[in-house]
Amino acid sequence: MTVTARLAEIADIGRDAERGGYSRHLFDASDAPLRAWFHRSAEQLGLTVEEDGNANLWAWWGEPGAGAVATGSHLDSVPGGGAYDGPLGIAAAFEAVAQLRGARFAPARPIAVCAFAEEEGSRFGLPCLGTRLLTGSVDAALTLQRVDAASTTLADAWRESGRDPARVGADPARLARVSAFVELHVEQGRDLVDRGIPVSTAAAIIPHGRWHLTITGQGNHAGTTRMDQRADPVVAAARVVLAVQQAARGHAEARGTIGKLQVIPGGTNVIASRVEAWLDLRADRDDDVRALFETVIAGARAAVAQEGCLLEAQEESFTSRVDFDAALTARVTAALAPEFGAVPAIPTGAGHDAGILSAHLPTAMLFVRNPTGVSHAPEEGASDEDCEAGARALAATLHELAGAP
Amino acid sequence: MTVTARLAEIADIGRDAERGGYSRHLFDASDAPLRAWFHRSAEQLGLTVEEDGNANLWAWWGEPGAGAVATGSHLDSVPGGGAYDGPLGIAAAFEAVAQLRGARFAPARPIAVCAFAEEEGSRFGLPCLGTRLLTGSVDAALTLQRVDAASTTLADAWRESGRDPARVGADPARLARVSAFVELHVEQGRDLVDRGIPVSTAAAIIPHGRWHLTITGQGNHAGTTRMDQRADPVVAAARVVLAVQQAARGHAEARGTIGKLQVIPGGTNVIASRVEAWLDLRADRDDDVRALFETVIAGARAAVAQEGCLLEAQEESFTSRVDFDAALTARVTAALAPEFGAVPAIPTGAGHDAGILSAHLPTAMLFVRNPTGVSHAPEEGASDEDCEAGARALAATLHELAGAP
Repeated sequence: MTVTARLAEIADIGRDAERGGYSRHLFDASDAPLRAWFHRSAEQLGLTVEEDGNANLWAWWGEPGAGAVATGSHLDSVPGGGAYDGPLGIAAAFEAVAQLRGARFAPARPIAVCAFAEEEGSRFGLPCLGTRLLTGSVDAALTLQRVDAASTTLADAWRESGRDPARVGADPARLARVSAFVELHVEQGRDLVDRGIPVSTAAAIIPHGRWHLTITGQGNHAGTTRMDQRADPVVAAARVVLAVQQAARGHAEARGTIGKLQVIPGGTNVIASRVEAWLDLRADRDDDVRALFETVIAGARAAVAQEGCLLEAQEESFTSRVDFDAALTARVTAALAPEFGAVPAIPTGAGHDAGILSAHLPTAMLFVRNPTGVSHAPEEGASDEDCEAGARALAATLHELAGAP
Repeated sequence: MTVTARLAEIADIGRDAERGGYSRHLFDASDAPLRAWFHRSAEQLGLTVEEDGNANLWAWWGEPGAGAVATGSHLDSVPGGGAYDGPLGIAAAFEAVAQLRGARFAPARPIAVCAFAEEEGSRFGLPCLGTRLLTGSVDAALTLQRVDAASTTLADAWRESGRDPARVGADPARLARVSAFVELHVEQGRDLVDRGIPVSTAAAIIPHGRWHLTITGQGNHAGTTRMDQRADPVVAAARVVLAVQQAARGHAEARGTIGKLQVIPGGTNVIASRVEAWLDLRADRDDDVRALFETVIAGARAAVAQEGCLLEAQEESFTSRVDFDAALTARVTAALAPEFGAVPAIPTGAGHDAGILSAHLPTAMLFVRNPTGVSHAPEEGASDEDCEAGARALAATLHELAGAP
């Protein structure tokens, strides 16, 4: 087969007719068909599938056990996401296993292909949910109390999916079996396009914070309330959005985004009473993100006060900078050299399960060129040739890492 | 009874636990209980209820026929609206009838208490739906094709409610029976508070336009996309919101509002691809609203272009200025003089069914003081004393208008 043919098998699952692209979220209608595809793909390659207590899938070549080499990514998407972010890493992993099988490679270590749950955090607001739970980097009981947009708790969603919430949480024994993890992922920028190369490794993930902002004003009638008698939270939120842009432009390597915003009550002829907004900040170092947040919030407070409104900010998550394992990355780079030459290690602004796992075991990443540079949108892309190049790079990597005990 | 006691009978219907206040929309779960209350209230006063083909209710004192005097308002609300906007006019009408019955008044003309359908336009986007259809000021076939947020057409909603879409549309014979219409409404500003009086008449409704704005950018990843490589429609929309505020502040008596705004796809870690926003503009004269729109749209186009995004604007409705009937208002003012002295006639920025009807028959309004001045929000209010004063003013009005043939 090819990576492209593998991705074609799931091309109709979870399409979003309204937004374009895909909306595949934890335990929604797309979840079971995507898991079924994972099972079928694994079984066709003679791999044995297990699901851990955190809804993560593991397809094993060889007996699950100590010293294993793991690869994989995720099957879920952002709302209206592209076809490659997540699934490419899993399809390429299966294809790499197929190539190694075809070449009669005999692994000296067990190999696992993983699909981690809710990497995008689109349903319950916590990215890398599956690996955060697996590694114990979040408290299982508190996490099970998180709610989705319909106020369903994660615990209830877990039960409704037929799974046992009592199994959710840190699983150090399972994690201890893995000696190295390499995640292949479509690039989420234009670095490889600019360099003119199909694959690279990753140097680091820049740190990332999310805050929930609540801007409260005075709901009123849009027709009868004079402009000078308003406390309009939509106007205040507009000033906050511009304060975010201004602050992020003022810090090198910084990104500041408000991509989710809700106006309450949301009537055409009604001055809103409240705006809920989610702030996403990233920068080079942890301290840079904290400093950026202070700049943003000072600007936002002044902006909101100017409109007679109130601002509350609550941190939803903070993910520290990740530097991938240098020794592991050097081995991957050496394994790629025969076909790809000396591939660079590039930093990224996107979070990944590999970033979560890197706190617990040697971890590296492979990026595949994205011709549009667009990510988290239907325009995201990867050429068929580059997808196959990625699978060959991953096969070379697994050959290197699992070839000797 | 009292007006307060009548309103207490519907105080539990259509409460909005999320937004506060009430969300009562056409044919939703609140619709049938509110109509049942109207029927019960009418029957207790010996009035005969008919529903016209446009889902408007008419409760008749005397035989329905030529020369009738009609009063009433609406039972629906904006999302998260107050308890008085609409229902006060109907409860006060029933109470006025009760007082006239108690005083053994013998009307020389038939009197009708009306409840008009979907005055706020919250479900199908067209305010004064019931009176616009009744008067033929909108095309029935086109209006039946309008869709709500769930893409249900008005025609389907009409059928699902058990009503016949074939009966929807202009009904000149029914309208011709009415010689005068007077709507009592809670004030939607602080004019009566500032004047220290409980009731007034209305001079005019200032004109009102609604536009649907679509701002298109490039969806992308919030972490990987540099600030200088973005076309973020949320930032563009923020600039549009500020352009609206600036333009409205620059025109005397003008109001400009964006109270409904949707970000697509709406992910925390996603630069949005599109923002849908609804613009509400009002000013003293029709030409002033048109000029205000031109100022807003010029500012908005410049703002959107600055962010590399595109703007489309589509007019959803335009409601011209209404000057209420001077002779009728003079008769109402004279009828109020014994208790209330020389009440003023004040202009309002809010639309009303009385405004639609005024193009077809002599129409006037009564306003009741709102201590907060807030409207279209749960904080809207009216004291018990002022509600009763309103009912007495309406009783005096009906006595004057229906007392002689």
